[in-house]
Amino acid sequence: MEIKAGIVGATGYTGVELLRFLALHPQVRVEVVTSRAEAGLPVAGLFPNLRKYVDLAFTAPDVKALSACDVVFFATPNGTAMTLVPALLEAGVKVIDLSADFRIKDVKVWEQWYKMTHACPQLLEEAVYGLCEINRDAVRGARLLANPGCYPTSVQLGFMPLLKAGVIDPTSLIADCKSGTSGAGRKAELGLLHGEVGESFKAYAIGGHRHLPEIKQGLNTISASPVELTFLPHLVPMIRGIHASLYARLTDKHVDLQALYEDFYRGEPFVDVLPPGVAPETRWVRGSNHCQLAVCRPQQGDTVVVLAVEDNLVKGAAGQAVQNMNLMFSLPETTGLNVIAALP
Amino acid sequence: MEIKAGIVGATGYTGVELLRFLALHPQVRVEVVTSRAEAGLPVAGLFPNLRKYVDLAFTAPDVKALSACDVVFFATPNGTAMTLVPALLEAGVKVIDLSADFRIKDVKVWEQWYKMTHACPQLLEEAVYGLCEINRDAVRGARLLANPGCYPTSVQLGFMPLLKAGVIDPTSLIADCKSGTSGAGRKAELGLLHGEVGESFKAYAIGGHRHLPEIKQGLNTISASPVELTFLPHLVPMIRGIHASLYARLTDKHVDLQALYEDFYRGEPFVDVLPPGVAPETRWVRGSNHCQLAVCRPQQGDTVVVLAVEDNLVKGAAGQAVQNMNLMFSLPETTGLNVIAALP
Amino acid sequence: MEIKAGIVGATGYTGVELLRFLALHPQVRVEVVTSRAEAGLPVAGLFPNLRKYVDLAFTAPDVKALSACDVVFFATPNGTAMTLVPALLEAGVKVIDLSADFRIKDVKVWEQWYKMTHACPQLLEEAVYGLCEINRDAVRGARLLANPGCYPTSVQLGFMPLLKAGVIDPTSLIADCKSGTSGAGRKAELGLLHGEVGESFKAYAIGGHRHLPEIKQGLNTISASPVELTFLPHLVPMIRGIHASLYARLTDKHVDLQALYEDFYRGEPFVDVLPPGVAPETRWVRGSNHCQLAVCRPQQGDTVVVLAVEDNLVKGAAGQAVQNMNLMFSLPETTGLNVIAALP
Amino acid sequence: MEIKAGIVGATGYTGVELLRFLALHPQVRVEVVTSRAEAGLPVAGLFPNLRKYVDLAFTAPDVKALSACDVVFFATPNGTAMTLVPALLEAGVKVIDLSADFRIKDVKVWEQWYKMTHACPQLLEEAVYGLCEINRDAVRGARLLANPGCYPTSVQLGFMPLLKAGVIDPTSLIADCKSGTSGAGRKAELGLLHGEVGESFKAYAIGGHRHLPEIKQGLNTISASPVELTFLPHLVPMIRGIHASLYARLTDKHVDLQALYEDFYRGEPFVDVLPPGVAPETRWVRGSNHCQLAVCRPQQGDTVVVLAVEDNLVKGAAGQAVQNMNLMFSLPETTGLNVIAALP
Repeated sequence: MEIKAGIVGATGYTGVELLRFLALHPQVRVEVVTSRAEAGLPVAGLFPNLRKYVDLAFTAPDVKALSACDVVFFATPNGTAMTLVPALLEAGVKVIDLSADFRIKDVKVWEQWYKMTHACPQLLEEAVYGLCEINRDAVRGARLLANPGCYPTSVQLGFMPLLKAGVIDPTSLIADCKSGTSGAGRKAELGLLHGEVGESFKAYAIGGHRHLPEIKQGLNTISASPVELTFLPHLVPMIRGIHASLYARLTDKHVDLQALYEDFYRGEPFVDVLPPGVAPETRWVRGSNHCQLAVCRPQQGDTVVVLAVEDNLVKGAAGQAVQNMNLMFSLPETTGLNVIAALP
Repeated sequence: MEIKAGIVGATGYTGVELLRFLALHPQVRVEVVTSRAEAGLPVAGLFPNLRKYVDLAFTAPDVKALSACDVVFFATPNGTAMTLVPALLEAGVKVIDLSADFRIKDVKVWEQWYKMTHACPQLLEEAVYGLCEINRDAVRGARLLANPGCYPTSVQLGFMPLLKAGVIDPTSLIADCKSGTSGAGRKAELGLLHGEVGESFKAYAIGGHRHLPEIKQGLNTISASPVELTFLPHLVPMIRGIHASLYARLTDKHVDLQALYEDFYRGEPFVDVLPPGVAPETRWVRGSNHCQLAVCRPQQGDTVVVLAVEDNLVKGAAGQAVQNMNLMFSLPETTGLNVIAALP
Repeated sequence: MEIKAGIVGATGYTGVELLRFLALHPQVRVEVVTSRAEAGLPVAGLFPNLRKYVDLAFTAPDVKALSACDVVFFATPNGTAMTLVPALLEAGVKVIDLSADFRIKDVKVWEQWYKMTHACPQLLEEAVYGLCEINRDAVRGARLLANPGCYPTSVQLGFMPLLKAGVIDPTSLIADCKSGTSGAGRKAELGLLHGEVGESFKAYAIGGHRHLPEIKQGLNTISASPVELTFLPHLVPMIRGIHASLYARLTDKHVDLQALYEDFYRGEPFVDVLPPGVAPETRWVRGSNHCQLAVCRPQQGDTVVVLAVEDNLVKGAAGQAVQNMNLMFSLPETTGLNVIAALP
Repeated sequence: MEIKAGIVGATGYTGVELLRFLALHPQVRVEVVTSRAEAGLPVAGLFPNLRKYVDLAFTAPDVKALSACDVVFFATPNGTAMTLVPALLEAGVKVIDLSADFRIKDVKVWEQWYKMTHACPQLLEEAVYGLCEINRDAVRGARLLANPGCYPTSVQLGFMPLLKAGVIDPTSLIADCKSGTSGAGRKAELGLLHGEVGESFKAYAIGGHRHLPEIKQGLNTISASPVELTFLPHLVPMIRGIHASLYARLTDKHVDLQALYEDFYRGEPFVDVLPPGVAPETRWVRGSNHCQLAVCRPQQGDTVVVLAVEDNLVKGAAGQAVQNMNLMFSLPETTGLNVIAALP
């Protein structure tokens, strides 16, 4: 089988990551790579890491060309995919949207946080939320896939076992998350300059981050009662990686936390529970599709701590998108994703 | 007035920072700088940033030479100061210890966490804990000053106003702290190599960090009932800076948090409450003795969030030590500490 | 004496550095800080490192307000100073221009490299090139001072002793220079993002950098015959610092290079020749106004190597500007510049 | 075919890189991974990036176990391989040595630079220097392969076309090289701490670097007359990557430099000549086995500039070792090396 793939908006960081994986994927041929601004430019001219691997040039986005693909990935800013998706679905193309357009089921919540009117709210119900480990069966049958956000992937994978087991107070959740700077995308903004974010650390979006409703929606699907969550993102002076430090109040102090996590993720190819006492480092998964987890209970108190790391551009974006594509096309889930993090 | 100062163990990062401040302090003359390993070497040979400012050479530690000083700073690993301090005090020298030897009042707790027998437990009661903003009067009269740890400074300054006002549940405290790599000191260890900690982020000491009992002791002096604290330190791929993200459950939802913090720290030269909505960045205080604080209540929920930044080597070590020295010698508290962080 | 100072265009990195030095300068009061874009905003709102030190707000540039100053600094992009300088000079204000508008004597060369028509070529002859160590006497009498570029400062200080002594072939010069990212200024450009320049190294401007004619002009003032220079700048993934590696063919193999350099810079407060065998590190001068130099002759061959480091924003910009101001106002040259680099 | 491979000394950075490539190499099975210090520890315990990919534990080095391999890689400090290689060769094992033990043909030169007595000088002549692009045929037949050093790979690939064509003065060579910190290896040394090398840039080994004789030996094999080379290495505050800036005096000013380089490397899978005007960035090849080159002639003067980038741990070490192994076992040269650099 050869899957013909298109990428819309491939001039950003998730776009170039998609190309890194798809260019070497044994069952995929990338046929269309669009960018309105860079139309005509060879892709490898903008991203010279792709020299010798990608021969295409950017083209202006065109529904007809995209309709000839089997799958189209949207690596666009929020608000773009929703304008093109209906036509592509109609043409029989499967769509994987890496933006936030189809992640929130409640259109009012989406419009409140994203400050736009949604262009096709009627598709929100159909869209499948692509957190593979939780939603694998639904992903297999998806026509329109909403690829999860980077923070939401790590926070949900971290909290799920505890919520499913019902051993924490779901109103006590705190997610202190740290991200590398690539999470903000490839945008010409003062606040993202090397001189502004290098050698410094800060919290940001302290008034509320858009990933909050996405995380709460996901956790609520598995929690017996509604969660209350304080979510605080921070910016780390490194390029890639997310580290989520998750806190909750234990209601069952006899649970074997290590066994709970190992059982929950047994057999998962890309979620890895570390041995007791080992704290994950973002570099251990840099460039790879793995999420590593640790769970502990400091001083045997009543607070449980979960640590989760992932590469925000891979398991938190492009890698998970390919993992979802594999499921949607009945390929082995790990196809094209056997990449080991380069250490150091 | 000219204060004759000595520094024991000045080959580490707190030592060179002390020299940076003391070399330009208008009332201080550094007379003795000791290092057993580097005796004979010009200080500016090891630290060429001090060329043209410091002409001394390292000498082997010698109680007699140190006894001729008015004040001696210990920038040594834990366990060294306690062996020399009694003799220096007897000689009439004031001592400022930047290590942890005199920070914990309960010798059993100290010995449990520091895995040593204390050499002079009889001095623990006299030692003054030098968190200037909380303990200013005691510092003025101190003969033996225990300079606070880097994490404890930021966490205590952050939580104090809430605990004093009694508006949070003191058993609900979480301190998610992040430090630059200089906090680990200047030691030849694999885990501190650029190749090991650059471009990565991790939690560490998840089994319990030595600053935990120091923080709890400090918070308990101001809290009406005993605190329970989860303290998790993380390592940031930058050299300097601490960022503490503090969480607690509000018990009084009508308190004006901004006013509470501004009132508590009004007039403080080195603690600065930022305007509402502004999140501090570690670079804003890098190299300076300032601590910047922000307080907020995300989504108007029942969790209060406090953000505190400091330079771990300055307000978290050498700068605070000089601030304490100024108080101990009746100098204006800011003498020699008027340094503005260099941005970017 | 109190010098009333104004800064035009203080929202960039050289602007905030000027403020760091001037705010603590004992003889200066900053009265006007202009920015068209940020007029009305408190300066410390944009640069919170200045909180407690600078109370001014940005104002729109206004010749009248600036004319009330004793000295006006231009920290503007190239092409701005030249439009305002004539009026300020006429009002009796001394001007220190940190941009390139007045650095090149030959207006044709300037216009060729800067792609603009010069607005006041009649002032080029009068403008004094402010490389203090070479031009001290002229600086003292200057009304209009052209502050040198960052690369030109390091390359000229490095090559001058060799050219003056006539011991190298002046047609064999190579300057392989490396700069931190702040050298490109505080501009919202994709190429300056942390994600684009972090963890990577490159040469740039390989077709020719604007500092080339400035360096050649300076070297030619001291060389017996015209120099030929290959100048290649590189970008280092750090924020501050310039390291120049300079190469030339020795024509006199008996010269004592170390003595030559020590004699040339004897007594200079801000140029420091390191002991033989010591290679300078940019961090040794970070945040300070010092330039450190080393000279050697690898394998006793016929190539001499000079290494020069400086902080591009201090000795390469704002610090040298203050040094020039001190000379222009007959103050001790080091006033307000006694800052020690913070290590680590 | 399945090649049984052993790695001696796999606790360093080249060791873990070898494992990254070999673990996914379709024709290789790693059977033995030795480390005296870590014997018994699971490899993935030390390098958790290898979890799910490498199940072996370190064993103490043992000639018998290694003799059962088809190929043994030495990722050891200099001086170790030479003590074990004779026995392995005798047992019919092919050896690829990533250390410097067999790179220099003249044992006197080797002993002078490496300050040791060579243990088996009789093998120096047989050893094949594994710069694949220059030495491909010899590599195919090699029993003992000396894998080139990181700097020598980039400098030789950069200068070779010019020397072969005879268009430069071979006595005028300057190699100004910059390396990430992983080039120094995984050693507990103060000088490699994050706090010592982060946010700073310096030259080092200014008295002479061990790669100098290796580079000169290589260049002399292709140059019509003996080369004279000034080689100055610098340390960049990044983990991976080498950037070589090469300078030489053109003797033929009519040569088409771009065509010369494109012709010389036409068809090479891992050497890539960039289009005119494009300067390579180390990140474009980070983690991959590619070397990218650019050539230019600034200001049309008589100095030619060549820029070369590679990942010091891949094309400069482990990747080139695998490329050599592929040749030695008659596999397609790119097997197991199709890795695209992750951008950003």
